[in-house]
Amino acid sequence: MKKVLILGAGQSTPSLISYMIDNAGKYDWYVTVADYNYEMAVERLEGRNSNCKAVKFDVNDSELRNKLIEESDLVINLLPPTFQFMIALDCLNHGRHMITASYENFRVKQLHKDALKNNILLLNEMGLDPGIDHMSAMSMIHGIRERGGYVTSFISYGSGIPAPEVNSNPLKYCITWNARNVVMAGESGAQYMEDGNIKLVSHNQVFKRTWSVDIEGVGELEAYPNRDSLVYLDVFDLTRVTTMIRGTLRYPGWSETWYKIVKLGIPNETMRVPNLNQLTYEQFTEMFLPQSASGSKLETRLANYLNINPTGKIMQNFKFLGLLDKRKIEGNPKTAAQVLEGLLIQKMPLPKGMRDMVLLQHEIEAVFPNDGDRKEKITSLMIEHGDPNGKTAIAKTVGLPAAIAAKLLLTDELQIRGCQIPIKKEIYVPILEELKKLGIYFKEKIESI
Amino acid sequence: MKKVLILGAGQSTPSLISYMIDNAGKYDWYVTVADYNYEMAVERLEGRNSNCKAVKFDVNDSELRNKLIEESDLVINLLPPTFQFMIALDCLNHGRHMITASYENFRVKQLHKDALKNNILLLNEMGLDPGIDHMSAMSMIHGIRERGGYVTSFISYGSGIPAPEVNSNPLKYCITWNARNVVMAGESGAQYMEDGNIKLVSHNQVFKRTWSVDIEGVGELEAYPNRDSLVYLDVFDLTRVTTMIRGTLRYPGWSETWYKIVKLGIPNETMRVPNLNQLTYEQFTEMFLPQSASGSKLETRLANYLNINPTGKIMQNFKFLGLLDKRKIEGNPKTAAQVLEGLLIQKMPLPKGMRDMVLLQHEIEAVFPNDGDRKEKITSLMIEHGDPNGKTAIAKTVGLPAAIAAKLLLTDELQIRGCQIPIKKEIYVPILEELKKLGIYFKEKIESI
Repeated sequence: MKKVLILGAGQSTPSLISYMIDNAGKYDWYVTVADYNYEMAVERLEGRNSNCKAVKFDVNDSELRNKLIEESDLVINLLPPTFQFMIALDCLNHGRHMITASYENFRVKQLHKDALKNNILLLNEMGLDPGIDHMSAMSMIHGIRERGGYVTSFISYGSGIPAPEVNSNPLKYCITWNARNVVMAGESGAQYMEDGNIKLVSHNQVFKRTWSVDIEGVGELEAYPNRDSLVYLDVFDLTRVTTMIRGTLRYPGWSETWYKIVKLGIPNETMRVPNLNQLTYEQFTEMFLPQSASGSKLETRLANYLNINPTGKIMQNFKFLGLLDKRKIEGNPKTAAQVLEGLLIQKMPLPKGMRDMVLLQHEIEAVFPNDGDRKEKITSLMIEHGDPNGKTAIAKTVGLPAAIAAKLLLTDELQIRGCQIPIKKEIYVPILEELKKLGIYFKEKIESI
Repeated sequence: MKKVLILGAGQSTPSLISYMIDNAGKYDWYVTVADYNYEMAVERLEGRNSNCKAVKFDVNDSELRNKLIEESDLVINLLPPTFQFMIALDCLNHGRHMITASYENFRVKQLHKDALKNNILLLNEMGLDPGIDHMSAMSMIHGIRERGGYVTSFISYGSGIPAPEVNSNPLKYCITWNARNVVMAGESGAQYMEDGNIKLVSHNQVFKRTWSVDIEGVGELEAYPNRDSLVYLDVFDLTRVTTMIRGTLRYPGWSETWYKIVKLGIPNETMRVPNLNQLTYEQFTEMFLPQSASGSKLETRLANYLNINPTGKIMQNFKFLGLLDKRKIEGNPKTAAQVLEGLLIQKMPLPKGMRDMVLLQHEIEAVFPNDGDRKEKITSLMIEHGDPNGKTAIAKTVGLPAAIAAKLLLTDELQIRGCQIPIKKEIYVPILEELKKLGIYFKEKIESI
């Protein structure tokens, strides 16, 4: 019997855990789900009581952590990025495989040689973004190379948004994953390459540097630049591209509001603000305005300061978000970012019976010197919907790649070792194949240009 | 013989090292100056060869680090903040005292009990800002309390700028300390309290939220909010203040230029930009502008984008800084912040024979209930000048507090142990006294208001 330890039972884990417990009997696995919130861990087991259990888990309890890891053959780590290195190191010390959906941490990367020596796999970026995006992009790029071509332009979009029919709020956005990441999006700015020119964008400009993208079957969305697109020049070995852009998609109107929220300065998680829970939301918003002698309304002064119309769409969105509410701040937030995170969770749930939607679209241009320098544009689109009242699209697309990788590893079909991200064929081919069987796949369109 | 190890021999250490080697014979000390740049460490010894030596030191060489620390009675640590915890831990393990000019790291703070157990002192914030500013403020606040009053308003300014007669560049600023800190100033925004209202300011607004300050004997300067002023509510135990502001002073005109540099997005040290040293400075600046089809000049597009006059003062400052130079980028910068840091070092040295200047000014308002609620405003000003072609004011004011603390500790006049910052009388009283003897002191003015 192989033992699997799943660390974390949050919003992105239901599909992963379902897959593992569904297959536990067939493959003779024992699955342990560990979370600080024991009730949530129990709930994820969907009432089963064979081949699985839930345990209460505090990541800072090193004794319990080491005991659980030592008892396992494989650790699937879905804890926040802060803990990636610690868990990877524990897995290395106990000689256990690890799979995670998080970005490959540079300190984890340095464990490659030791992982090889200990004959274990530390597999990172095995979710949606990063995860399916890399695997599908790499698959397209390898395909172009095999046909004798090279890539000249790489544009890729990712998004987790409500399905088009959801109209529950004016921003057309629902929180289906970690709200903190929505609040802090773009915090380090962004960079990309356009027609041979590298472009750097600061946090205060990310949500102004937007453009329209038409997605087949969905309609017009807006894109903003997603972090550092240029690291993928090396990762994908793209030496001849002149355009390299990764974008995040939202329904139109999100970014013009978010630009003003950034301008106001709310996404700050460094500064600990004293006694936030003694203020109203209106007083909170007031903190970001310069001191004013005049007695005019907050709304008027906010509009003047942000140079927006006092009754326009952006002000309506501010009101919808609750930033002008006269009620006390809920919970016990310590930073401005946490106040906003709380509001997003209150105001933007996915309504019952409604579906979320995950989009990935790659637009790759390539030249084929073996065919008279013929130019081709390949557009590849994946759309996945959540099940109404069931698993979200986010849970499926983040969780299933890790689950499939776990199965391949436990059944000895995945032989690679060391510290990896899923850009090698031996990893991504079988995983994309099984995702396709589960209904998660890309439609490709090729045009000569 | 007591052995003192000084880690770091950079711009802020000459006065500290002079003080230590000047007194080494008298007190029977042996002083070891350790730096990665061995020649600089040797230079700091000013040609002496008794009771002192220089060693080449790589902080990541743990064997050498532990050996040097174990052989010492006291470690004066002037390495960058990143290494504070590591050195403090080493000192704790070997039972050695440590003094540093850096902010008290929250992980270092947690070593308090262990430091008490091992009977050692870990003394932090023993420089200028933090250092002399805290000591002098605490001294004023204790004085008010002893006279039966309480503080209602605390405003404090700090600055390291050229003396008024220095006119070597249009920004009236010279690099006399770590240029990286100039580039990244305000990166986490700022917060303060004004008339009972907490104000939060984002990085993109810090250099717009400025005000004028008149300093006696210097003239009109401008202030911008300096990081998190509110942590000092607890540190100074100020429970009844309604205004709490720490500001940084510059000559007028600095902030309007820096505001646009932040708006452009140059102070970014997170994003690693590929191949920066293959670009010109002009191409570097171009990276921050949106892609443009038009063939108009960079200058024109920059002015449009930043909403500044194409021939005005701010554009002149951009040109002075070299941001429009057609020459190749010097050195091997990895981030946009490092490119700007290189330019500041090239363009803004303190000219030979010229003096820098350090300013600290506290403006404290207090109420005396024992005197019919009489109100008082106390203004306390310290101005220190550098010696032309000699020690800078920064070197004196950052280095001497640590040096004096070292002497007091080695002569058993400082008995306090544990992890400390200099807000207790037994620390700050003897240090402020000796600083006064060395010519570094505050002039106080008391008005009834």
